[in-house]
Amino acid sequence: MQLARRIHAPVILPADPDCSVLRDAVLDVREDGRIAYCGAKAVAPSVEGVAETRLTGILMPGLVNTHAHTAMTPLRGMGGDLPLMSWLQDVIWPAEARMRGRDAYAGMLLGCVEMLQYGITTSAEMYIHSEEVVAAALTAGIRALVAPAYFDLPGTGWRSALSAIGKWIDEDGLRFGPAERIELCYGPHSAYTLPFEALRATAEAAVPRGALVHIHLAESREEDRRQRAEFGSVPQLLDSAGLLETRLLAAHAVHLSRQDIRLLAGSGAGVAHCPGSNAKLASGTADLRALRAASVAVGLGTDGPASNDDLDPWEEMRLAMMFARLLSEDALALTARDALLMATREGAAALGRRDIGALEPGRWADVIHIGVDGPHFAAGLDIADEQLMANLVWAAGSRAVRDVWVGGQQVTADGEPLFVDRVAAQRAVAEAAAHLVPTAYRG
Amino acid sequence: MQLARRIHAPVILPADPDCSVLRDAVLDVREDGRIAYCGAKAVAPSVEGVAETRLTGILMPGLVNTHAHTAMTPLRGMGGDLPLMSWLQDVIWPAEARMRGRDAYAGMLLGCVEMLQYGITTSAEMYIHSEEVVAAALTAGIRALVAPAYFDLPGTGWRSALSAIGKWIDEDGLRFGPAERIELCYGPHSAYTLPFEALRATAEAAVPRGALVHIHLAESREEDRRQRAEFGSVPQLLDSAGLLETRLLAAHAVHLSRQDIRLLAGSGAGVAHCPGSNAKLASGTADLRALRAASVAVGLGTDGPASNDDLDPWEEMRLAMMFARLLSEDALALTARDALLMATREGAAALGRRDIGALEPGRWADVIHIGVDGPHFAAGLDIADEQLMANLVWAAGSRAVRDVWVGGQQVTADGEPLFVDRVAAQRAVAEAAAHLVPTAYRG
Repeated sequence: MQLARRIHAPVILPADPDCSVLRDAVLDVREDGRIAYCGAKAVAPSVEGVAETRLTGILMPGLVNTHAHTAMTPLRGMGGDLPLMSWLQDVIWPAEARMRGRDAYAGMLLGCVEMLQYGITTSAEMYIHSEEVVAAALTAGIRALVAPAYFDLPGTGWRSALSAIGKWIDEDGLRFGPAERIELCYGPHSAYTLPFEALRATAEAAVPRGALVHIHLAESREEDRRQRAEFGSVPQLLDSAGLLETRLLAAHAVHLSRQDIRLLAGSGAGVAHCPGSNAKLASGTADLRALRAASVAVGLGTDGPASNDDLDPWEEMRLAMMFARLLSEDALALTARDALLMATREGAAALGRRDIGALEPGRWADVIHIGVDGPHFAAGLDIADEQLMANLVWAAGSRAVRDVWVGGQQVTADGEPLFVDRVAAQRAVAEAAAHLVPTAYRG
Repeated sequence: MQLARRIHAPVILPADPDCSVLRDAVLDVREDGRIAYCGAKAVAPSVEGVAETRLTGILMPGLVNTHAHTAMTPLRGMGGDLPLMSWLQDVIWPAEARMRGRDAYAGMLLGCVEMLQYGITTSAEMYIHSEEVVAAALTAGIRALVAPAYFDLPGTGWRSALSAIGKWIDEDGLRFGPAERIELCYGPHSAYTLPFEALRATAEAAVPRGALVHIHLAESREEDRRQRAEFGSVPQLLDSAGLLETRLLAAHAVHLSRQDIRLLAGSGAGVAHCPGSNAKLASGTADLRALRAASVAVGLGTDGPASNDDLDPWEEMRLAMMFARLLSEDALALTARDALLMATREGAAALGRRDIGALEPGRWADVIHIGVDGPHFAAGLDIADEQLMANLVWAAGSRAVRDVWVGGQQVTADGEPLFVDRVAAQRAVAEAAAHLVPTAYRG
């Protein structure tokens, strides 16, 4: 395969298992959008007649958002400060009942712009209006794992949703679009909003298709109590339904016993840790140390813009570190390196994907360039690796993301989206918000 | 007093005790830099021949940072991930021993630019090289309470520091500079780095001068154990030394008993809650609910750029809410309104200041303008108050701060400092960092 481009950078973080810091390094991208080489320039293969780009900052893999409902952007901030269950039942679900396809498209499009601006190149989405969600992701240029959500609520049918997903995958393929940017998934909302039968049918449909099953699991204590009384525990219930045989992505995983964690670990399930959303809604926080010690692949999730609300994956990295340190009273419980890997390589593993999340030959060239001209990098790059990681994750974060490539194609330049008119996207969200939020609530 | 300017805005948050949201409102600023009026336009006094400015976003008081060591900017990120005591002893103190006045000036200047860009208009600083710290604050245009720090460490003398502060106050006044931007304070580092005698001498010097005493208190459990064994508790020790008779600002206040909290509350001491720094260093987190329930004035502190590291006061607001909610499992434990008041009015009260922190007649016109053209305000301002607060604090935060005035004088415009060459300031920090960090550590 022909090379398309060689990118030089003073620092590259390939997100290898050690989270190495490469100095004076290059990244070679193939014409099909995958990586050919990443490593020190001194030992790089010589290339000829290939376009070369010289960057001045830090090059690293794009961030992987393992749990989001990005199309909810028009509902951002709604409900203010409420606990999970009343926030869902009294505010969000009524508004969502009014959601049209165009509202979801507008929300997803603007949300994708924000995510790309913050350095997210892959997002695992679970929502309704999935065709519009896919269309918006393709327009923005982000990589998305799209799980159409289904519930057993009046007016929604899990059976028809399930069969529609199967048909969609069988027709378009599990992955499609340029650089296979879209992957279709199953999105059973949760064990508490679906009958056992729906979960079993999901497993039966997902296993032969090799599809990811994206589900909310043990988010709130209330949910957990209900499930424990009925089934022992949520993971045990999922096991009985056959869902542990699928590529399972469990979002939240806050209220789990040691036995539950062992069960998940044994199944190879991935976990989406959403510290910001869980803390905001007072749901609790997942026991990251126990999950990681059991070798569960744990990624980070922003959750939706209505419960987070800023979609900033760097803040999630910091929150993951802070919560782990507070729980353990150990400043080494989770380091900046650990957090960066959770947001990249391990997040990809949690999605069952080995083709993104690191700068390694054969993986997609989903890459971000961190500008180092701001105050947080005033000390420059000629500093100890630990200090560089701290300045990147603790201080600079989303503010410093400059340029983003997905599958080798540049999708933002100097923070601005290349394929979306941002102002028009905001106007569309304003129009959607005015439609979705009943006048009485608008104050 | 003559009016200098009337500012119109679609939304003003005056930070009154209810944290009201005023629609279609105005702020009148006097020529001496204080506020003449803030309220609904419909009932505002009529003015003639006064300059009028029409803003499109949200006007609110500048944020009050109640605990910082901003001059440490050149040490940002140093030590990476270490617990408090080894971070201090092995990394920070050795580097600080090399700190020159010009390094502190460079660090403070760039740090002030960052703080202003994030909407901080007042910062309570504790550090060495205080003359340079004051000079940098005056140059940048920020309001600062500057507490020269003293310890009982080899090569430093608390006696001479104490007498120098007294002399400085007696010569220049407790507050000086344009719009009284500088207030001098006493900065005994902590009870564990000073003998009892130094604390008593501090109280004796501070009380007659009406000076604020800024001290670290009960930050880490280790510190607390040491103190409890010797004195009962740190607050009891401070009480015996006479420090509860001063305007006391206790930074951190993590490890306190109910009795300690009652003692602080009875004395009128203020607390600087630093959730980010405390969590990063695994020190624990203050019991915000208990402190607030006891009517202790609690503000928010970023702490220094070497332990936080981003100086973002909006992230501290979110962290305060998240930690309080996690501890209590109650999503209403601390609302966005509560957090905003802690960062403004209550922070000012924690510093014993009633002349800043709110948009009220007679207070200084320390004001920030929040731009609402970004994605987080896509739904506009014609939304419920709760949603507006959520979009401001949970989603937009520091990214949206556009313009800043201190004492009626504009100091940043569209995010750029008006009195500092930001690029030169960063270069000076780079030079300082190269001097401070031994080559061996630079990697």
